[in-house]
Parts: sequence; structure tokens; C-alpha cells
Amino acid sequence: MQGRNREELSGIHFLGNQKTTYPVNYAPEMLETFVNKHPGRDYWVKFNCPEFTSLCPMTGQPDFGCVYISYVPDQKMVESKSLKLYLFSFRNHGDFHEDCCNIIMEDLIRLMEPKYIEVWCKFTPRGGISIDPYCNYGRPGTKYEEMAEFRFRSHDLYPEKVDNR
Amino acid sequence: MQGRNREELSGIHFLGNQKTTYPVNYAPEMLETFVNKHPGRDYWVKFNCPEFTSLCPMTGQPDFGCVYISYVPDQKMVESKSLKLYLFSFRNHGDFHEDCCNIIMEDLIRLMEPKYIEVWCKFTPRGGISIDPYCNYGRPGTKYEEMAEFRFRSHDLYPEKVDNR
Amino acid sequence: MQGRNREELSGIHFLGNQKTTYPVNYAPEMLETFVNKHPGRDYWVKFNCPEFTSLCPMTGQPDFGCVYISYVPDQKMVESKSLKLYLFSFRNHGDFHEDCCNIIMEDLIRLMEPKYIEVWCKFTPRGGISIDPYCNYGRPGTKYEEMAEFRFRSHDLYPEKVDNR
Amino acid sequence: MQGRNREELSGIHFLGNQKTTYPVNYAPEMLETFVNKHPGRDYWVKFNCPEFTSLCPMTGQPDFGCVYISYVPDQKMVESKSLKLYLFSFRNHGDFHEDCCNIIMEDLIRLMEPKYIEVWCKFTPRGGISIDPYCNYGRPGTKYEEMAEFRFRSHDLYPEKVDNR
Amino acid sequence: MQGRNREELSGIHFLGNQKTTYPVNYAPEMLETFVNKHPGRDYWVKFNCPEFTSLCPMTGQPDFGCVYISYVPDQKMVESKSLKLYLFSFRNHGDFHEDCCNIIMEDLIRLMEPKYIEVWCKFTPRGGISIDPYCNYGRPGTKYEEMAEFRFRSHDLYPEKVDNR
Amino acid sequence: MQGRNREELSGIHFLGNQKTTYPVNYAPEMLETFVNKHPGRDYWVKFNCPEFTSLCPMTGQPDFGCVYISYVPDQKMVESKSLKLYLFSFRNHGDFHEDCCNIIMEDLIRLMEPKYIEVWCKFTPRGGISIDPYCNYGRPGTKYEEMAEFRFRSHDLYPEKVDNR
Amino acid sequence: MQGRNREELSGIHFLGNQKTTYPVNYAPEMLETFVNKHPGRDYWVKFNCPEFTSLCPMTGQPDFGCVYISYVPDQKMVESKSLKLYLFSFRNHGDFHEDCCNIIMEDLIRLMEPKYIEVWCKFTPRGGISIDPYCNYGRPGTKYEEMAEFRFRSHDLYPEKVDNR
Amino acid sequence: MQGRNREELSGIHFLGNQKTTYPVNYAPEMLETFVNKHPGRDYWVKFNCPEFTSLCPMTGQPDFGCVYISYVPDQKMVESKSLKLYLFSFRNHGDFHEDCCNIIMEDLIRLMEPKYIEVWCKFTPRGGISIDPYCNYGRPGTKYEEMAEFRFRSHDLYPEKVDNR
Amino acid sequence: MQGRNREELSGIHFLGNQKTTYPVNYAPEMLETFVNKHPGRDYWVKFNCPEFTSLCPMTGQPDFGCVYISYVPDQKMVESKSLKLYLFSFRNHGDFHEDCCNIIMEDLIRLMEPKYIEVWCKFTPRGGISIDPYCNYGRPGTKYEEMAEFRFRSHDLYPEKVDNR
Amino acid sequence: MQGRNREELSGIHFLGNQKTTYPVNYAPEMLETFVNKHPGRDYWVKFNCPEFTSLCPMTGQPDFGCVYISYVPDQKMVESKSLKLYLFSFRNHGDFHEDCCNIIMEDLIRLMEPKYIEVWCKFTPRGGISIDPYCNYGRPGTKYEEMAEFRFRSHDLYPEKVDNR
Ligand SMILES: [Ca+2]
Ligand SMILES: [Ca+2]
Ligand SMILES: [Ca+2]
Ligand SMILES: [Ca+2]
Ligand SMILES: [Ca+2]
Ligand SMILES: [Ca+2]
Ligand SMILES: [Ca+2]
Ligand SMILES: [Ca+2]
Ligand SMILES: [Ca+2]
Ligand SMILES: [Ca+2]
Ligand SMILES: [Ca+2]
Ligand SMILES: [Ca+2]
Ligand SMILES: [Ca+2]
Ligand SMILES: [Ca+2]
Ligand SMILES: [Ca+2]
Ligand SMILES: [Ca+2]
Repeated sequence: MQGRNREELSGIHFLGNQKTTYPVNYAPEMLETFVNKHPGRDYWVKFNCPEFTSLCPMTGQPDFGCVYISYVPDQKMVESKSLKLYLFSFRNHGDFHEDCCNIIMEDLIRLMEPKYIEVWCKFTPRGGISIDPYCNYGRPGTKYEEMAEFRFRSHDLYPEKVDNR
Repeated sequence: MQGRNREELSGIHFLGNQKTTYPVNYAPEMLETFVNKHPGRDYWVKFNCPEFTSLCPMTGQPDFGCVYISYVPDQKMVESKSLKLYLFSFRNHGDFHEDCCNIIMEDLIRLMEPKYIEVWCKFTPRGGISIDPYCNYGRPGTKYEEMAEFRFRSHDLYPEKVDNR
Repeated sequence: MQGRNREELSGIHFLGNQKTTYPVNYAPEMLETFVNKHPGRDYWVKFNCPEFTSLCPMTGQPDFGCVYISYVPDQKMVESKSLKLYLFSFRNHGDFHEDCCNIIMEDLIRLMEPKYIEVWCKFTPRGGISIDPYCNYGRPGTKYEEMAEFRFRSHDLYPEKVDNR
Repeated sequence: MQGRNREELSGIHFLGNQKTTYPVNYAPEMLETFVNKHPGRDYWVKFNCPEFTSLCPMTGQPDFGCVYISYVPDQKMVESKSLKLYLFSFRNHGDFHEDCCNIIMEDLIRLMEPKYIEVWCKFTPRGGISIDPYCNYGRPGTKYEEMAEFRFRSHDLYPEKVDNR
Repeated sequence: MQGRNREELSGIHFLGNQKTTYPVNYAPEMLETFVNKHPGRDYWVKFNCPEFTSLCPMTGQPDFGCVYISYVPDQKMVESKSLKLYLFSFRNHGDFHEDCCNIIMEDLIRLMEPKYIEVWCKFTPRGGISIDPYCNYGRPGTKYEEMAEFRFRSHDLYPEKVDNR
Repeated sequence: MQGRNREELSGIHFLGNQKTTYPVNYAPEMLETFVNKHPGRDYWVKFNCPEFTSLCPMTGQPDFGCVYISYVPDQKMVESKSLKLYLFSFRNHGDFHEDCCNIIMEDLIRLMEPKYIEVWCKFTPRGGISIDPYCNYGRPGTKYEEMAEFRFRSHDLYPEKVDNR
Repeated sequence: MQGRNREELSGIHFLGNQKTTYPVNYAPEMLETFVNKHPGRDYWVKFNCPEFTSLCPMTGQPDFGCVYISYVPDQKMVESKSLKLYLFSFRNHGDFHEDCCNIIMEDLIRLMEPKYIEVWCKFTPRGGISIDPYCNYGRPGTKYEEMAEFRFRSHDLYPEKVDNR
Repeated sequence: MQGRNREELSGIHFLGNQKTTYPVNYAPEMLETFVNKHPGRDYWVKFNCPEFTSLCPMTGQPDFGCVYISYVPDQKMVESKSLKLYLFSFRNHGDFHEDCCNIIMEDLIRLMEPKYIEVWCKFTPRGGISIDPYCNYGRPGTKYEEMAEFRFRSHDLYPEKVDNR
Repeated sequence: MQGRNREELSGIHFLGNQKTTYPVNYAPEMLETFVNKHPGRDYWVKFNCPEFTSLCPMTGQPDFGCVYISYVPDQKMVESKSLKLYLFSFRNHGDFHEDCCNIIMEDLIRLMEPKYIEVWCKFTPRGGISIDPYCNYGRPGTKYEEMAEFRFRSHDLYPEKVDNR
Repeated sequence: MQGRNREELSGIHFLGNQKTTYPVNYAPEMLETFVNKHPGRDYWVKFNCPEFTSLCPMTGQPDFGCVYISYVPDQKMVESKSLKLYLFSFRNHGDFHEDCCNIIMEDLIRLMEPKYIEVWCKFTPRGGISIDPYCNYGRPGTKYEEMAEFRFRSHDLYPEKVDNR
């Protein structure tokens, strides 16, 4: 038995598709959506993406990180395999950690027009120091804008223990 | 000595019943309740269900997850063995993670008419990404509706560490 | 040197007493108190009781759990060895998890008349599902009633990871 | 650049194939192999399979476990997606934990004719007790038979901590 | 589909039986076996039993522990629900930790006549000290006797960290 | 280079002093302070003291705990070696856990006159139960009094897992 | 492909520069900034610095700690390699833990003029006691000043477990 | 029901005795034994003692450690409450870590004449360094002497992770 | 002060060199060595490389893993920055996990001619299964060949817990 | 009471001495010994030193690591405060990780002439890779030489999990 019929799955091209071509450059156009079947209820969706990698824009050396994306959908929801391909497109892209975090959020806002979204990136250390940027967004003029402010203010009161091993 | 007499246990059929037949399709009708003996006090009940499995609606491959259900009972309380049989009925059912989470909550609202309920699902990764949907509900027009808003706003400020191993 | 003189220890019978007889039935009468020496200050006392066991009222099978009790004392404070004997008296008692949690809190309210109290029970799984009830109480008409409401609303926003192993 | 050419990948049908049909019955015929490119060197390959599920043969209730498979290849190596499909075929199959463990190893011996293999299954608890069967095999008349004896004798001297949560 | 037919399950009475009566005294007679279907292969079976409780023979106070049982079957294998009932029968039984460990192993040797067996009990602390007895057995005059000696000599070279919290 | 000159270190006698005599009785007079060089800014100082030990006032048996002290300094700050000597003085002192916690806080209030302070003690179990008292204080009539109320109300919403091992 | 062009990287001298000379004295002048490319959005940047070491001003003995720095950038952002060099300059500098924490924050405020910043230092124990100072800052007269007050009030409600091992 | 009769418990004075007087000096005479009821079988008994404290012989400062004692009994077994009192007697005793470890083992050898015994002490750090002495003993001229040699040679190949927090 | 003079560092080009160009294809020629200053003593060197990534040869999707390399040097030792560049060169290279592991070891044998070497790779899951290959080598005809056999036989008796989260 | 008299403590100058001057260069001459009071018994002493830091000989950047030292004393034992001062002397010393490990062991052999010694260093990552050297020594011509060989061969069969965070 299927909870979604063919029509409800119609906008999805990558999931279950054998002939995936992996992008070699930053490729926000890979992102696909499907329709939210529960638009009358606010709910959270979180993606844990511990296999993110990009390049340092000055030295070219690889950076590794875990990206956490949480959002409250409105009409459109990002399909997870297309999200994987999109994140893959940073693999040969050089940018600062702080910039990657902002760019990912901006691309997802443009794609889904969510009520709320936040992105938290946690990178491995370089020179003994690791960097964890976090940004969030609530649709302007709605209660989600206030929610964004509330969550921003409460962010990371308990930093996780880090020992570089 | 027993804390509940025979009458107080009267609506329960599956618990302690040897001849349980496991459902082969999505089966919300399996859910049973017993009566709340402490209706004058608000209290929380949480179920930890780390043995949840369903199928992907597009590829048919199995998905695995942990389902956390927390609610504040009104008159009726879900019996845990019937909950187990209900969750089992997703075993051969195909649906997106985000849809499963909403459906479980809706079925439990219909069953128990609780004051408040929330459902958080944490799935294992596919393609390196894992998905954790969360939804909640407070009875409209009561203080539990405000509680739902408060908890929704405060949800998951500290994402757990995920490394896909 | 002793911080409490003989008089201040006068109501305590079980602590340090060799001839303890363990109760074979549910025995709230075992509970004893001593006097609060810091009544002018609100403070918290928490008991961690990971050795709780009772019986299932329908099947008779043993249940195991950890009971966390936190309270703000007024004049009387529960003595910990008497609390141990009281919790022991559930050993051959059959009751639902949700009922045990409420009963423990009610007995302690009756005993100590605390300003505030809460009880959280975390049981091991049956049928793959574990149950964690939580209840709390603030003295009606005082600020502790509001504190109870606040804590109830904020309860368990971060469910602990459970994997049944 | 590819480390394996088309010929070296020729026996593999499921990996990267969109039209996978998941078996509904125990299906050892799903298992596929590819050729070992390093036959002159003994080396270990381990599969961690934490998403295993089967049914209890007496009660029909679902069982969940993690299967660890380690082997030393000779000429043939099991392809991991076909292994996934094979393990999936236990989903609606009823068998004791101890029997599943032996059957998985036997099917893989028949498939690959490895020099050495071992299978360790760790299940979630039923009735408060969990069961972890382990079996191993070394090709008779070779030094791998002795290795099997050595590893059997040294098995699990340090049981992992289990607390059913 | 079932991996075991009716005959192969014939000696089992408690598993799936609704009318289980829990024993109130030490009851080795509860233990039941089923037949080993893989007698030609040596393999390990481990039971993790974190819900063990007994009484102190001098003070009557409850003791709690985790019992780990590992064995190599010959013809007979202990059925896990009967094992649960047997372990339950220590609930109101008073004995030293060291004695419980030896008694459990002796009862299982008498029942199954295994090739090899070992029992490790890890109790919670009393007076700040916890006790962990371990005993093992290999059938006399066989290689399993040597295995027992080997494992005894290698026992617990890495004591787990214990801090009483 | 030194961040503090001789004058700024003038009130400190124990730190770096070879001839320390350890007190044999409860000795609040050991506590010493140094001057706060950042009085214009509110900031937190936390002491983690996992090596605290005292005696039970009824049985004389030793108790062990971890003491966490957090405060917001005004003009004076407690020097850590003198704090160590002070805590040492409980070594042969008998008092209830709840009393020790209050006494430590009172002595530090008297010493430093801080804007805010809190003390949380976490003891190891006796009879299977452990006790964790917590008290706090904000200078009356200031915003720190409100902060104390806020923190008291929010105290320990997530009890740490305790299993007595 | 690069996310930042040459001009946007122009103020950075140490990153990727082979001829780094490590400062031998406290050297706030090492700190460098780059321009914030997302000035229209508030976002967090956190640095985890577990390799901090300084000297005790009284005894000269080395101290070790982990420094967590979180801030909300305005126009300027601190470059991480220059931050590393700056923190290195404490290596032969003697100061109290509480003073180091304040000084680091003050130097970063002067450098970046951030909207908000906080610094949390967690040191290893001396004499069995460890010290964890925390300070924060919000730009006066803005909402960030209120955010500072909110975060200060909510600081460290859940002290991490410390056992000196 | 009792597993040990009155006679079998006859040599025990401290267990369950209310009037325990805690020794103020090193007191090996506190140690008591009971008879081994399973003399025909070699088995292990381990004591985990995380609440050990003594004094530094040069500075008088308190030391804290965890003592792990494992032995194979012959005729006599040490009773755990008497062991607790014995270890307590180090509370005001000054000795090096390495000496304490040897002394504890020697006293237990004299008491029980065990076949084999080992003592591992793990102390908290002083000056950033912690010390973990280990000694063992097998009865001379028996196979236990060889076992001691084997275990000594294999000792601590995997040092536990230590970070002083 | 320097422990190595200029001559002893003469073969190293990448370490501390700003103008590193990262290779875009599999590049074993990047590997560099320095001379072993302790050739008279056998010792171990281990590299932990948790930032390894390659591509799947059939689907092109990225794989992530941790590579552990341990060796006993003879005359030459691999320099760690050149090792980093070498491992980076797998970034756009497609190969099976089992092949990568063998190739890395072969390249390092060719480079250093070590007495002994082993490589263990632990990858993140695909389709719910993760793969961990391990290979080792001892110089033929020496005692290191026997050591390789010994270590191979003893490999991974305790599989780490894996739950795909 | 003291376990060591004045004479037995006579060779120790740094422990308890206020006027410690910390060395600014590599200073093996700081190491001091005391006499072994248990020369008739072989026993282990382990030092955990997680606060080790040195400099990179090529770039000058600081390195951080944990040093584990284990030895079997003969007549002389290294005093721990002098060991601390010795390890401190690497603070401004530049050397490769592999060299530091060998040098520390050599200095301790020269100092104590132990029967056996081993040193394991675990450093934090640079460029995403961390290095863990290990060396050991048994007195030539004794059984300790064989023990060294045995331990070398068995070294680190279970690499700890490393994730660079
Ligand atoms: Ca680094
Ligand atoms: Ca880590
Ligand atoms: Ca995956
Ligand atoms: Ca993980
Ligand atoms: Ca995991
Ligand atoms: Ca269960
Ligand atoms: Ca668990
Ligand atoms: Ca567990
Ligand atoms: Ca205890
Ligand atoms: Ca206890
Ligand atoms: Ca614990
Ligand atoms: Ca513990
Ligand atoms: Ca630690
Ligand atoms: Ca710790
Ligand atoms: Ca997967
Ligand atoms: Ca690095």
C-alpha cells in the first residue's frame, strides 16, 4: 500500500533514478520539491547532513562539516535526494564556512518559500580551531519572524564539548 | 495486590493475549484505550519506540526510525501493546517520513482526544542524509493550544550529534 | 563534629537501624520526615532512584524503572532510607506505569506538604516500547502553582536517545 | 577516474539500478558477487547492518537487530546492495534469533566460498532479555580453520553494557 | 513463512502463552529447552539480562544487577521466556551475589548440558562498593575445558569505568 | 609577562605556598578573596569540585559528591586554593547532604557578597538512592534576585541519567 | 570556482602564508578581519578553541583550557588563522582564568565591533577544582544588549559532568 | 527464602550492624571473611570501589581514586562491608599512590590467602598528571602464578582516554 | 630550540608551504618521506584520517570514511602533509571501498618500505549498510610477517556499535 | 599517620615546593626519583598526561597531545611533579611528534633504569590528520625484553574512534 499516489510524487526526478549525474559546480538548480500534504498544520522537518565537504577559498584545501537544516514547510517541501545532489555541488567549490551557511539557507528560501528555516554548520578544525556558523529566517511580517528572533536569541547556550580528536 | 481492578482494565484486549494476529496493512483500528484514573491532574506520558520501520513510497526500500510520542491525557489513554500493533502495521506501508509523522499523530488525536500531543520521528540516513520530522497539537481554544505554540517555537534548539555511524 | 544534634535527628528510625524489616505490600506508612533547617530559603532536593521495580497488573511480569523525584521543601523533608523502604514496597505490587508515578507523588505530597514536587519515571521496554510518565504539583494559590505550570509546559523538549540496548 | 572498469563491474545488477523489486520472502538468490582484485593478499571486509528485522516464529511479533558480518575473501566478494536485498527478505520471515544467524552465514559461505567468515547478531530485548548469537567458519583443512577456532575461543570476553534503554 | 515447523517448536510452553503464572520462589523447574538445529557447528549464544533483582540474605534489602550468560550449545538450548521466568524467581530469594552467580550457571549446566557456559553478574553498589562475580565451565575432558581455562585467565583485563552514578 | 601585578595579588596566602596546613575541622575561615578587576561587567565564574567528601551525621560513614559552584562577582572573588582548603574541611564533618549545600552557599555569600550565587551538589548513592540538593541566591532588591527566581524555576528540567554504576 | 574574489579576501595576511612568525608575548595586534558579506542578516559564528594554554600568574605553572567564542557580526569578522595566532600569544603570558576570559572578549570587541559576543573558557583542574569563566556583551542601547542580559540569566543551567579524568 | 543459613553467615559482624564505628587510622584488622561455598570451582569476584580517598604524604592534600580489586577465592572470601571499613581507614592516612596499591593487595593476601588477586588504582590528577598503579599476585608454585605473569604482561594495552575533565 | 636541524628536514616540500596545489586526480606521487632518526628501535606511528572521501565507481555518489594507518618505520617515514594531499587525491576518484583500502596500503609500502603496515577504513552507510575493509603487511621473511599474521587473526574481535545515527 | 618517613622521601625537591622555577628549554635534568619500596614485586605505574604541548619544528605552530607513560619499576621511580616540570620543558621546543615520543622514553630509561617502559602520544589534528606514536622497551636479556616484543605485536588492535571534533 502506498501513502502517496503517482500524482502526489509527480515533481520528483532524482529519487530512485539510476542515471543520476553528479554536478561538478555549485548547482542550486538541482533542488526539487514535492507538495506538502499537511498544509493546515505547522510542523518541523530536520535534515542531518554529516557528509558535507567544500574547499577553502584561499588555500584550496578541503573542509569537512555537518550541516543541520530545519524548516517549517508552507506549500513546498525539498526532496531529500535533490538536496543531497545540491550539497554535493559544494564539493569543488571554494568558500568561507560563514558564507556557505548563508548561501545554503538563501537557496532553500528561494526554492520552498518556507514559513521558517534555520541552517547550522559544524566544521572540523583547521589550525586547532573549528568554526560553527548558524543563520535563521522567519517569513517577514508573520509570527515566524518573531519565532526566528526568539530562536536566534536562545541559540547554543550549551556549546558541545570539542576536543579535536 | 493490584492497583487496577478488573473493571478498570476492561477495555484492553491485546495486552497479555496470546493469540495476537499481527496486521499486514496500515491498521489504525488496532488502537485501544483505557481510562485515565487521574483526570484531575495534568501529567505527561511518553512512549519511546525505537523499532519503527516502513517502506519508501518510490523505491520500496525499508526505512528505519525511532518514534517519540508524548501526550497529556484527558479521559482516554492509549494502551501500549495496541500502540505496538498499530506501529507494526506501517511495516509494509509506503510513505514519506514527513507523512508518517503526521498520520501517527492524527490517528492518536482521533483515538484519545488528548489535551496535548507531539510526535517526533528520527530516521536512519538514506544517501547520507537523515530526516527527523516533528509535529504537535494542543486542543483548540484551550491553554494547551498555547502550550503547543510554545513548544513548537522552542523545538530542537540543540540538534543531537549525527555522524552516520 | 556533627552538623545536626540529636534533637534535630529525632524523628528518624530507619537510617542506621540494623533491624529493618522490609515491607511485603505497598506501604506508604514507611515514609518518615525530618525537619527542614533552612526554611527561609527555597531550595531543591532531588532523589535519583534507578532501582525501582513493580509488577504489571495484567500479566504479573516484573517492570523496572528509574524514578527521579525533585521537590522544594517547606517544613518537612523526606528521609532517604524511609523513601527506599517505601519504594521497595512496590516490589510485589501490580500497577500501570502511569499510575505508579501519580501514586508516588501523591504519597509524598501528603507526607511532606512540599511547596513544589515532581516525579519522572523512566521504564525499560516491553514489546519494544518504553513508557516515561511525568507529573508535578505546586501548592495551590502560591507562586509554586505557576512554577508547576511553567515546568509542565517546558517538560522534556529534548527526549533522550533510546535504542533498547 | 574509475578504479574499476566496466568488465570488473560486470556481474553487478542491483547497485545503481532504479527498478529494484524488493523480495517478499526469504530470498538467498538475491545475493550477487564481484571479483576480488587483490586475491594475493588476505584482508578483512566487515559489513555493519543495524537495520535488520525479522519475525518471531511463535508469536509473529517483529524482532530488530544489528548484524555484523566479517569475512576474508577468496575469489568472490558479496556486493553490498544485493546483501541489503537479501537481508530485507527476512522482513516477513519467522525464525529464532539463533537460527537466523546460522542461516545468514551458511548462505554467504555457499555464495562466496570465503576463506573465513563470521556473523554476530545483536537483537533488542523481549521480556527484558536480549539475545546475541555468533557463529564463524574457516575453510576446513586450512589455516583459516585454526583461525576460526582461535577467534571462537576469544569471542566476547568483554560483553558490552546493556541497560534496555 | 516460518523457519521452524510445529514439531521443532514442540517443547516450548511459556513463549506466547497468555496465562503465565510468575513463580514466587526460586524455581529452576521453570527452565525449558528447544532442540539445536545446527549441532554440527559450534556457535555462541549470549543473553543480556539487565533486569535481575534478588534480596540480601542478611538485611533483606533488594539487590539489582545485570546478568550476562554466554554458552556454546550441544543438543539443547534454553528458551528465553523460560529463562526470564527462572531469573524472576530470584526476586524474593536471599543470597550473596557470589552465590547467585554460581547457582545460575549450575542450573543451566544441569538443564542444557552445554559444551561451554559462562555467567557474569554486575550488581549496583551497596556502601559505595559494587560486586561483579564471574564463573565459567567447559565440559570436562574436551577442548571446551581448555577454552574455559583460557577465558578464565583472560577475564576482565579492562575493568569498565564505575563511578556509582 | 604577568597580567596581574604584585599589588593585585596581595591578599592571597595559600596559592603557591608550600607550607599549607590542611584543616581538620570545618573551617570557613580558610576562605580568601582577591579583587575583581572587571567590576563594570557582569560575568560568571564556575567551580567544578568533584572531590568533595563528608560524613553521614547518623552513621559516620563517608559520603562522596561533586559540588558545582557558580557566581557573579561584585568586588571580591574567592581564590581557588583557599576554596579547596575550605571544602577539604568537610572531610571529617558530619552533616546531611541538604545541609552541606546550604552551608557552603552561606559561607560564600558572607565572604564575597556576590551579586548572584548557586551551589549544586551531586552525591553518590546510599541504599540505591542518590541525593542532589541545589540552592541559589540573588542580592535582595536587585535584578539578581529576579535572576535567582528565574533560575530556580528552570532548575534541572533534564535530570541526568543515573544508573548507580 | 571561488565564492569570494580576490578583493573580498584582501585584508587577510596570515591565512595560507608560509612565513608565519609566532608571537612570544601577548599580541592583540595579530588579530585581522575580513568583511561580512551578509550584513543584512543577523547570524551566529562560533569558534571552538580546545588548544588554549597560558601560565598561572603566581606559580608560573601552565594552565590548559578550551575557549568557546560566539558572536553576531556587524561589518567586520575575525579571520580564524589570525585568531589562532592571537590565542597563541597567551602561551607564555601569566594571568588568572577569570582575567583571560575578559581580556579575550575585550580585544575582540575592539577589533570587530560586533553586535553581540560571548566567551566561555573551561580549564582543567588545579588542586582538584576547575574554573570556567563566562562573559558576554551586547552593543549598548540596542536589542543586543537585551539579548546579552537574557543569555547571561540563562547561562549554564545544566553544568556538564566533571570527574577530573 | 535464604540461600545461606545462619551458620554460613556466622563470621560476619559489620554487615547490617547499626553500631558501626568508623576507624580513624589505617585498620587492616577491620577485614572479615566468610566461607566460600563453591570451593571446587575457580571463579572471579571483582569489587569496584570508586569512593577511595587518602592523603599525600608530603603535602597532606587529599587524593581521590577508584580501586578495582579482582580475585579468585580459595577457602575464604572478604565480606564487602568490612572491605568498605578497611578502605575507609585510609581516609586520614598519608601515602604515595604506588604504595597504597601494594598495601591493599598485601593485606588481602594475608586475610584470604586467595589463589589469585590483582588491584588497580586510578587516581585523579595532581598538577595535570594522574597516576594509575597496578599490582597482581598468583599463589607461588601453582598455575595461578603463571596466570599472574600472563595478566601482568597483557596489562592495559588500551589506556582509557583521559582529558582531566 | 629545534629537535631537527635543516638537513634532517630537507626532503619535505609541502609542510609549511603556502603555494600547495591540490591534485585533481589520484596522485601517489605526492607522497614524501623524511628520515627515521630512531632506526635502532621498533616503534609504531598511527595516522587518524577521519576526512577521507571518494566516489562510488558505479553511481558516482560521494563516499565518506575514516582511514586509520599504522606502521612500523624502517628508514623512511611518510610526512603527514604529503599524506594529506595524497588522500585528497581520492576526492574525485571512483573505487570500491575494498579497493581503496588495498591501494592506500600498497602505495605506502612502495614509498616507505616499512617493516609493518596496516590500513583500516570505516565508511558511512549506503542503503543502511556500512563497509569497513582492513588489510595489513609484514616484510616477507622477517618476524614482521609473523606479526602481520598474528594481528590479522586477532582483528576486530569487538566490532564497534553502529546504529547509522 | 604517614606511610613514608622522612628518609624515604629524601630525594624529592619539587613536590610541595613553593619556589618552583619552570624551565624555558628542554630540561631532562629536572627529572627526580624516589626509591621503590616494593622491589620484590613487579607492578605497573601509569601516568596520564593530557596537558602536553610542543611546537612544530618547521612552522613553529603549537602542537597539543596526551602522553601515556607506563612502566615497571626496578629500584628507582620517577616523582610525578618532576615529571610535570620535565614535560613542561617541551613547551617551547620544536620537534616532530614521532621524535618527542622516543625522546621522552629515552630520558626516562636513563633516569630510572626500569624493567619495562612504554610511551604512547596522541596528538590533536593538523590538516585533518592526527598522529599517535608509540614506543616501548624491555631490559635487554631479561623476560621484560620478551614482554616488550609481545606488547609491541599486540599494540592498538582497536583504534579509538576519532572525528576531529
Ligand atoms: Ca587543525
Ligand atoms: Ca571527538
Ligand atoms: Ca545513506
Ligand atoms: Ca553517531
Ligand atoms: Ca551511532
Ligand atoms: Ca522488551
Ligand atoms: Ca541505549
Ligand atoms: Ca543501553
Ligand atoms: Ca552505595
Ligand atoms: Ca547504595
Ligand atoms: Ca551511570
Ligand atoms: Ca557511571
Ligand atoms: Ca574526561
Ligand atoms: Ca570526566
Ligand atoms: Ca544509508
Ligand atoms: Ca586539522
